[in-house]
Amino acid sequence: MNAAPDCGPLAGLRVIDLGQVYLGPYCGLMFALMGAEVIKVEPPGGDSIRGIAGGRENPAAMMLNSSKQSVTLDLGSEGGRSALLALADSADVLIENFRPGTMEKLGLGWETLCARNPRLVMGSGKGYAADSVYRDAPAMDFPIQALTGLMSVTGFPDGPPVKCGAAITDFLGGIHLFGGIMAALHARGATGRGDFVQIAMQDVTHHALASNIASYLLAPDGFADRAGNSQAVLKVAPYDLFPARDGQVAIMCLNDRHWQQLTRAMGRPDLAEDPELAAGPARCARRAQVDGWVTAWTSSQTRAEIFAALSSAHVPGAPVRTLAEVVSDDDMRARGMIHDLPHPDLGTVPVPGLPMRFAAHPQVAPIPAPTVGADTARILAALEQDLPSAQSKDTY
Amino acid sequence: MNAAPDCGPLAGLRVIDLGQVYLGPYCGLMFALMGAEVIKVEPPGGDSIRGIAGGRENPAAMMLNSSKQSVTLDLGSEGGRSALLALADSADVLIENFRPGTMEKLGLGWETLCARNPRLVMGSGKGYAADSVYRDAPAMDFPIQALTGLMSVTGFPDGPPVKCGAAITDFLGGIHLFGGIMAALHARGATGRGDFVQIAMQDVTHHALASNIASYLLAPDGFADRAGNSQAVLKVAPYDLFPARDGQVAIMCLNDRHWQQLTRAMGRPDLAEDPELAAGPARCARRAQVDGWVTAWTSSQTRAEIFAALSSAHVPGAPVRTLAEVVSDDDMRARGMIHDLPHPDLGTVPVPGLPMRFAAHPQVAPIPAPTVGADTARILAALEQDLPSAQSKDTY
Repeated sequence: MNAAPDCGPLAGLRVIDLGQVYLGPYCGLMFALMGAEVIKVEPPGGDSIRGIAGGRENPAAMMLNSSKQSVTLDLGSEGGRSALLALADSADVLIENFRPGTMEKLGLGWETLCARNPRLVMGSGKGYAADSVYRDAPAMDFPIQALTGLMSVTGFPDGPPVKCGAAITDFLGGIHLFGGIMAALHARGATGRGDFVQIAMQDVTHHALASNIASYLLAPDGFADRAGNSQAVLKVAPYDLFPARDGQVAIMCLNDRHWQQLTRAMGRPDLAEDPELAAGPARCARRAQVDGWVTAWTSSQTRAEIFAALSSAHVPGAPVRTLAEVVSDDDMRARGMIHDLPHPDLGTVPVPGLPMRFAAHPQVAPIPAPTVGADTARILAALEQDLPSAQSKDTY
Repeated sequence: MNAAPDCGPLAGLRVIDLGQVYLGPYCGLMFALMGAEVIKVEPPGGDSIRGIAGGRENPAAMMLNSSKQSVTLDLGSEGGRSALLALADSADVLIENFRPGTMEKLGLGWETLCARNPRLVMGSGKGYAADSVYRDAPAMDFPIQALTGLMSVTGFPDGPPVKCGAAITDFLGGIHLFGGIMAALHARGATGRGDFVQIAMQDVTHHALASNIASYLLAPDGFADRAGNSQAVLKVAPYDLFPARDGQVAIMCLNDRHWQQLTRAMGRPDLAEDPELAAGPARCARRAQVDGWVTAWTSSQTRAEIFAALSSAHVPGAPVRTLAEVVSDDDMRARGMIHDLPHPDLGTVPVPGLPMRFAAHPQVAPIPAPTVGADTARILAALEQDLPSAQSKDTY
């Protein structure tokens, strides 16, 4: 049994988390890490993310479901539906990211839930909005990246579009859904009534392209969709990845002050004093030469040495790190952003800590994610619900 | 003068938005579009994003600051500081994403603001956390993408790392900051006390890499950092971009059911019936052949025809759209996700609508962003603050 921590800004809230894979579970994770009681409701076979890696449980299941409890229900059975209704009656928040129409098909749509528990806030995350022309299209991160243009602005000018390697539209969706639910809870404080909050991955991803769309609007005719690791519109240089002895570093001179500071870090006062290099457009026009000077400096040093020199000189830049390096980051552990938690089969898993810091609430370490259905009997007994007999269906 | 809408779940809240560029302003935009009164405080020369495009105002300034009011203050002057303190005294929320230490240097740190207004929730968004070893490094989206590994998982296996083309770490940061502030406001409902909420772009981006990190943990030795437009670890196919008559389409068969459905859409029952193609690993091993069959189908049709066929067959997929196509999307306009608002110099700008839908609150159209300082006199007069005389410094 996993008990919710007894502190945190959301202590006292009860959340029913029907989330699957990334979007819903990440939204529920925010509630759990902030101290709410989060009950993850899974089909008897578990959230599909658990099994996606074949024989072993996917570590992502553990990373996104810490500090939650697990109840398994076959929502397609009368007993499962009745138990879910009792859970929703007892809750402040219900989260779901099933495919469109699933909750209604199960007889668990907003009208039904709200009629029974008018204080409930229901949050639904979908790929496309319910009133979108694309509402019937199956949506996952990859097609959403295609449709929103995120893919078209990623990659090199002479290469094809490429997806952002992270399932970024799922996580953008999950955290927008969290924000929307919190706004509805705020309003409930005044009205006493809950609300139905909906977000679409298409919409939140579109909004995250605001800087790209602005660049396009400034120069629609000459707009190069993809800029690789450089800047699409601004006439600035250097702005790219540069080789280090042990990998690559990102260096950006967004303005002329950055260039002055970079030349200092490079030990090249001659470049700083050259009036023909003082302005971004001039450096941009001589980009191969400028990049060559920077490369001459970076290629003889390690990424750490370059990063330290850039930081001292107030030039934006950082090492390009692999996931292997990120996963073993000691600083993330020291700051409570990664917790190494034990898993029955996987050994330890690096589990995310709450990414918000609150001065009024101590950081609370996550509790390992529950095994499938670990809390079913206890939680249903507390609701005076019989344990549903038929727990066979794995999906709805 | 821009009046805040009189409805929305956050009506009645007053927010002081010191945000600059993307992170802080996107956080403030969520408050503004949900009905809070948001006062954008800018240096006399305006938020630096306004001027970044040279002679013309950057459309991004308008896209991220609609439905706000604008007050210009030189926070380095005594009059400006005093006016900001009066604003913070009157507010529920204060948002800032200056470089670390700026608020303290201005005498506007959390200790000062909280001592005067204990109900205030202050939200700070930074690149690196205050307790990070990198806290002194200048942080922007590009280096954060490098350091977090987001860049290392983006691009093709035989090519270099490439940034996600959107300033995604800024927007992830802004919406996490909004969520954290809302959680602190929720807690204030019980305690009566505000809080200091901090997020770091490094941390929220790390968490959005959960699926990639899980893939790495499952196969650390053979992990290919970048998978282009395919799947890094799962043995699935087809999963890629395919050529259409008028561009490209993304098609993914995450499971064998998707493959069965795709063959139906392709009119190839022979492939559906071939037992040697039934399982993902088998299709993956014959990927060139499988992709060839899909290409033969896609290349004779338009993206729209393929998208319709995929949707009918319940196969995840979508057209790869350019920003030019996204910007002219009629459906986004019909659904209130893009509003064409007038700008004094730029003509009309496609301004984002609130990406959350609330059943209990009607959608409210955004009001055009204010010009720099448009509301200074009125708002300071209401606080019985003298108009600061020295309004000269453009940055802090």
